[in-house]
Amino acid sequence: MATCSILLVTQYDGRRFSGWQRQPDQRTVQGELEAVLHRLCGTPVSAVAAGRTDAGVHARGQGVGVRVPERWTPAALRRALNALLPPDIWIAEAHGMLDAFHPRHSAVGREYRYLVGTDDAAASPFRRPYEWALGRPLDTRALETEAMSLVGEHTFRAFAVAGTAPATDHHRCRITTAAWEPREGGWRFDVAANRFLHHMVRFLVGTMVEVALGRRPPGTIARLLAAPDNSDTAPPAPPQGLSLTAVRYPADLYQIPT
Amino acid sequence: MATCSILLVTQYDGRRFSGWQRQPDQRTVQGELEAVLHRLCGTPVSAVAAGRTDAGVHARGQGVGVRVPERWTPAALRRALNALLPPDIWIAEAHGMLDAFHPRHSAVGREYRYLVGTDDAAASPFRRPYEWALGRPLDTRALETEAMSLVGEHTFRAFAVAGTAPATDHHRCRITTAAWEPREGGWRFDVAANRFLHHMVRFLVGTMVEVALGRRPPGTIARLLAAPDNSDTAPPAPPQGLSLTAVRYPADLYQIPT
Repeated sequence: MATCSILLVTQYDGRRFSGWQRQPDQRTVQGELEAVLHRLCGTPVSAVAAGRTDAGVHARGQGVGVRVPERWTPAALRRALNALLPPDIWIAEAHGMLDAFHPRHSAVGREYRYLVGTDDAAASPFRRPYEWALGRPLDTRALETEAMSLVGEHTFRAFAVAGTAPATDHHRCRITTAAWEPREGGWRFDVAANRFLHHMVRFLVGTMVEVALGRRPPGTIARLLAAPDNSDTAPPAPPQGLSLTAVRYPADLYQIPT
Repeated sequence: MATCSILLVTQYDGRRFSGWQRQPDQRTVQGELEAVLHRLCGTPVSAVAAGRTDAGVHARGQGVGVRVPERWTPAALRRALNALLPPDIWIAEAHGMLDAFHPRHSAVGREYRYLVGTDDAAASPFRRPYEWALGRPLDTRALETEAMSLVGEHTFRAFAVAGTAPATDHHRCRITTAAWEPREGGWRFDVAANRFLHHMVRFLVGTMVEVALGRRPPGTIARLLAAPDNSDTAPPAPPQGLSLTAVRYPADLYQIPT
């Protein structure tokens, strides 16, 4: 059967999912999406994501690639999916892609946002599902200094879960943006890179917050970037504060330039 | 047992509740709150709200009055409640009140906000639980004109559920604010009054939106304010767009002036 390649820019509220990846007897984003794709296409369809998100992590722009029967246009597939998907998954955009497109291998950039709430009201029902409700002030200077040392290409062995990347992986990532911005009730951390290791953003935020609380000395991030493993890294920040905001692909992989 | 009167300024995400009011075999805000109060106080404690909210309606400032054993300070009660309440209920403030205080009868003003999403992304998992995902543009002039005719004291028989107020009720409400403001992706309607009838805000929004979609002529609100019942009123707008934002009490009912 002739198929076409479609990129689904996907949003999900992570709180009721055991993460992206299909797992038996667990409610996952991939599992829900593939079930609806199967129903629409009459045949099993794999949904491949740019990156797997952990349980509780949100997405506002996950890149998901599917190959569906040629009769589907991107717009029709998007409409049909949004009509049938559960309310915590939503397809924001659908684009026809060239055959060379692969949702993970083709991605040239990923962007994440992490929200920290420093006020008391961060625990409210409208914010707690999307923030780390820390409830304590953070030192502005410390946040800025630690984030600054992230920009550039580094080895992130100290900010990865041991054993999750292949032994041959160089653990190198090129960070293009790493910036804390104040917002009402707390802070927002925006980080962009060519790739991220498993748990990396949460490890980075966990460690920067410890510095900004005065529990670790300034320069901790720079020191850990030279460390061989994560044995001296702070625990990862909680998942609900994290959102995968965008995945970037080369413009020439789109059938219609975006 | 000596008791003291405490006002709990309460927030809840309405989506998983069958409204405020305790009902057998239903998850309600009052039911959850009273269960935790009973556990903390060792005796049944009634939680009385300024106004009952419907299933799916949110609150950012519901006024809830409780009488608890005198050993409880407002701050200690708030901390204990927030530690034990489910994550979709949260006590934002607690104030010691004079004996004359009654959470419903003492309220001199209520404020509601209603969100309408006019763009496509209103259906996203992060907005749909809190907006009416209309997905169509609304006429600015029509919204403004209809809202303007609400301000002042009127009889709201056309915007009430028949039979829910006592037969002797005059159905009169004094609206002090009624304003639509544009926001990213749609509109926000803020309305304040001394009192509201059951479903009133949702009826008002439903009718104003019909005018702003061109389905009813301008001046519909003014005409319906003279109507004897709701037989010509639009269906109520969906509950999830509505939030009870504040309840106002006279300053002299607080033990410590606020």
